[in-house]
Amino acid sequence: MRKYTFSDIGALPDRFRRTFINSLHGLRPALLLGSRSADGLENLAIFSQILHIGANPPLTGVLFRPDTVERHSLQNIRETGFFTLNNVTEPMAESAHQTSARYPQEHSEFEAVGLNAQYREGFVAPFVESSTLQIGLKLHAELPIDANGTILVIGQIEVIYLPEAAQLEDGLVRHQVAGSLAVAGLDMYFRPEPLVRFSYAKPDLPLQNLEF
Amino acid sequence: MRKYTFSDIGALPDRFRRTFINSLHGLRPALLLGSRSADGLENLAIFSQILHIGANPPLTGVLFRPDTVERHSLQNIRETGFFTLNNVTEPMAESAHQTSARYPQEHSEFEAVGLNAQYREGFVAPFVESSTLQIGLKLHAELPIDANGTILVIGQIEVIYLPEAAQLEDGLVRHQVAGSLAVAGLDMYFRPEPLVRFSYAKPDLPLQNLEF
Repeated sequence: MRKYTFSDIGALPDRFRRTFINSLHGLRPALLLGSRSADGLENLAIFSQILHIGANPPLTGVLFRPDTVERHSLQNIRETGFFTLNNVTEPMAESAHQTSARYPQEHSEFEAVGLNAQYREGFVAPFVESSTLQIGLKLHAELPIDANGTILVIGQIEVIYLPEAAQLEDGLVRHQVAGSLAVAGLDMYFRPEPLVRFSYAKPDLPLQNLEF
Repeated sequence: MRKYTFSDIGALPDRFRRTFINSLHGLRPALLLGSRSADGLENLAIFSQILHIGANPPLTGVLFRPDTVERHSLQNIRETGFFTLNNVTEPMAESAHQTSARYPQEHSEFEAVGLNAQYREGFVAPFVESSTLQIGLKLHAELPIDANGTILVIGQIEVIYLPEAAQLEDGLVRHQVAGSLAVAGLDMYFRPEPLVRFSYAKPDLPLQNLEF
């Protein structure tokens, strides 16, 4: 068993600490954030720091580090008020990861990594054509996190596209059918390998296994 | 292809909408939050709404819905200032899910679901003995989210325990070795099935596959 205290963590080499703590909590959704500047420059960046804030109204949180490549996305969201989140599937994994390179702002990551932008029914921000799950969002609020200057951007879900087979009758999104990858830290990708779905838990009642 | 607009989502039956939007974004880490009230009552609850806020200092965000069973955990954190996050592995999946039942506050979920509390080296909050990844945190700040009354609780990481084999030399936590499960929505559990690890992306340089 290894043990790290707060001061151990502080004394680690920067790169080791970043890799360690970023991957610590487990698997997160790998999502591509599509945006466009007011003068039409497209941007695409991979994100995994996502919160389900609420269902009614449907709100999603995305954590931004303004000192990284993510800042182009944030600028665009502020300029136009809209962005998209698109799942990353296995055939797209390499292209999706490549969006994290520091391209100059006037460069479209769509073109640079070989993914097609898709504009759907007047929505301002570009979706990723090859994604099987596409979510269009409108900027709702920004919540600065004083502890370290990160920003929680809250978006209201305006539209969702997904294949029929990727949703169960009770609403559950079947990520194993959509092929949505997960990521730990910045670079370790995982397949969605379903294990079990449990019924709603009640005291003193055994759980049932549900279909998925 | 199915399409849901904002107003479609608003018109869905409550339960369908909750299941749909909660599972929408993809896989999240399944973690057990351990806490103890000022007068010693233990609490254990499953959480998956987690943000890696930063590595230096090491900060973790946990989203709370105060109107659910999560409120006992939040009360405890406010009373003592400490909590733990512990991974959920396959043999623990059923017990972990069962913690989401609405037990009375004077009831310990550890006992109710058959998981052992573990106190380590004077840390105030209980860890989960059978977890292979144990994180001890100190309350750093609470960030209310006005949009819907949820609260982002930010904890500073005070201590981490994990098996040697569950960490690579460069710091990466190997969740496939730790056996850390992921969850989509409230009830759909996934195994950590590794796909690929990519090198740091740079413009115009091909990605390398790294060991994991």
